[in-house]
Amino acid sequence: MIYLDNAATTKPSAEAVEAMCRAAKCFGNPSSLHGLGLESEKLITESREAIADILGVDKRNVFFTSGGTEANNPAVFGTAYGRAKLGKHVITTAIEHPSVLECFKRLENEGFEITYLSPDSGGRIRLDELDAALREDTTLVSVMHVNNETGVIQPVSEIKRLMNKSKNALLHCDCVQSFGKIDVKPKKWGADMISISAHKIHGFKGTGALYLANPKIKPLIYGGEQQNGIRPGTENMGGILAFGAAAKKCVINSPHMSELRNQMIEELGGIPDIKINGSTEYNSGSILNVSFTGIRAEILLHALEPYEIYVSTGSACSSHRPQPSHVLTAMGLGKKEIEGAVRISFDEETTSDEISCAAAAMEKEVSNIRRYMR
Amino acid sequence: MIYLDNAATTKPSAEAVEAMCRAAKCFGNPSSLHGLGLESEKLITESREAIADILGVDKRNVFFTSGGTEANNPAVFGTAYGRAKLGKHVITTAIEHPSVLECFKRLENEGFEITYLSPDSGGRIRLDELDAALREDTTLVSVMHVNNETGVIQPVSEIKRLMNKSKNALLHCDCVQSFGKIDVKPKKWGADMISISAHKIHGFKGTGALYLANPKIKPLIYGGEQQNGIRPGTENMGGILAFGAAAKKCVINSPHMSELRNQMIEELGGIPDIKINGSTEYNSGSILNVSFTGIRAEILLHALEPYEIYVSTGSACSSHRPQPSHVLTAMGLGKKEIEGAVRISFDEETTSDEISCAAAAMEKEVSNIRRYMR
Repeated sequence: MIYLDNAATTKPSAEAVEAMCRAAKCFGNPSSLHGLGLESEKLITESREAIADILGVDKRNVFFTSGGTEANNPAVFGTAYGRAKLGKHVITTAIEHPSVLECFKRLENEGFEITYLSPDSGGRIRLDELDAALREDTTLVSVMHVNNETGVIQPVSEIKRLMNKSKNALLHCDCVQSFGKIDVKPKKWGADMISISAHKIHGFKGTGALYLANPKIKPLIYGGEQQNGIRPGTENMGGILAFGAAAKKCVINSPHMSELRNQMIEELGGIPDIKINGSTEYNSGSILNVSFTGIRAEILLHALEPYEIYVSTGSACSSHRPQPSHVLTAMGLGKKEIEGAVRISFDEETTSDEISCAAAAMEKEVSNIRRYMR
Repeated sequence: MIYLDNAATTKPSAEAVEAMCRAAKCFGNPSSLHGLGLESEKLITESREAIADILGVDKRNVFFTSGGTEANNPAVFGTAYGRAKLGKHVITTAIEHPSVLECFKRLENEGFEITYLSPDSGGRIRLDELDAALREDTTLVSVMHVNNETGVIQPVSEIKRLMNKSKNALLHCDCVQSFGKIDVKPKKWGADMISISAHKIHGFKGTGALYLANPKIKPLIYGGEQQNGIRPGTENMGGILAFGAAAKKCVINSPHMSELRNQMIEELGGIPDIKINGSTEYNSGSILNVSFTGIRAEILLHALEPYEIYVSTGSACSSHRPQPSHVLTAMGLGKKEIEGAVRISFDEETTSDEISCAAAAMEKEVSNIRRYMR
């Protein structure tokens, strides 16, 4: 199997599975007063510390959630509602993940004023557009760190610098696709909130975390006293322990994935009518988005399955949705380029041989599809 | 170890661990279009079916969440907000779990009118009080099936029957403590929504489900198209598969736990100044709440630890909170009875010998504590 859909999800690592099994043995409720409870609480704290260390933040600012979606939601809603007295203008980009975009759409329906920043043709937002949009009544700027369809990195530090003139605005960065791959340093950037997810870095699906520089957000979920009431509910111990174990194993800023991405671009170079989507200069290296113009991406996706090669069309979370990619649309791509766009996403363990093999299969199948489609 | 804190959490079963490990192997994103994704989706559907079967409902009405707390929240908020045009009066009880009560407190702050039903001394709500409270502008009645501190069963079918006169009101039942132990049949009761949790029935922490008779609730969390947008976010596959595996193993309406509870009551009978809290007639059998008057429960809890006997004070989710139990307070217990209240909670695997051993240890330690405390 050549698995090139790592941006959708990754295989839980041996360490993550081991941590999950540990949680099945140390099964006390972390809120229980007895020894079994304290032991569970200690293990959760260790995991929180591991993640806080990688982020370069204090563990008291890290709150576990049920995933990236449930980290993005309280960041957006908690800030917009919690600061509504200071203003009802909020800013995001046209290329965010649905778990951010759909929150903004709801805010729009509720009377908030939204500015959607558009990207340039390379997939980077325009800083001058942000500068022009920032106002005194702006309370939130939510910009993803790395785009999930193109791998393009947004200039988060520069964004924060521009925000100085909007003294009430907080910066939220969806770091689901960057955490564990490239540097995610919210304090260095000045980000007030970031969202991360376990299953993109060989943890299990169902666990994420929200970093809050100032842990006084209006919660999304109400209940017991867990996590200081910021995110109540019995902690997903297995998922959290596995997240910590997976995070410890991450290789940050490794050149390997960029090399794989460059190799793939080169090896696909012989195929006519293709287009690489998104900046290579500002790229995490983990994602390559390429349009095979004139073919439908899902046909190529299925044609690669007999080879046990797995790629994706757009993002997984919207791949059952017939709409064209909102990211590529915002970048100005044409209908045929969007229809033929495939996302190839790499992993630290992906090998150069796998890239060659996948590129050869794609070349053959693209040619076949184009012939039979005519 | 004699683990008598099963109402706080249970040990994941071998089947649940196996299912979790299966999810680590079949790791595709269930939203992915390729074969790995479809395989994951199929496994999730099987788990949904297993749970739907036990509930006697259609699988399309079952939505996975990150736990009981995150099932209760959308049920309460989704209904109250979604039906606000029909009325802003909502009803709950004074003895709900914090993940229900705190939602109602927030609704109260937001201008909703709340009626909190109080229990009788046996812990059952008074139907005449409910009858008097129901109005035309009532949109929600949220009553737990089995109380998490006393094991007392609420008359959910009778509640629904009374609700006929409030045509706009939906019934939500928090079934976290009853699911997998006694019959939970929302369609038979006429319940519109119920909440259940995996880790109370030997699944993993971090997974629950919400049954919606009419799946058109206003979501709490926004994002992708997963679970028809009712609860977006990549599904917690491991947790869901383990939930299904654990649910399949449940023994419903077994007399075993009631026998254990009765045995414990009998064996503790020799201790002076004790009080059994909550009806035995209407009890799930899985929980025994007993006050050792004049001692502080946490001292007994810790005194039992050297025996490797684990019990709890009140509910786990609030045991780090110094406030006296809101459940026992509502039932009219005095300060000393509340301070000395211990929750002993059983499991299908708990043995009669364990009960005898735990009862003997409690008798000894209660006597010691009372002697030294004087």
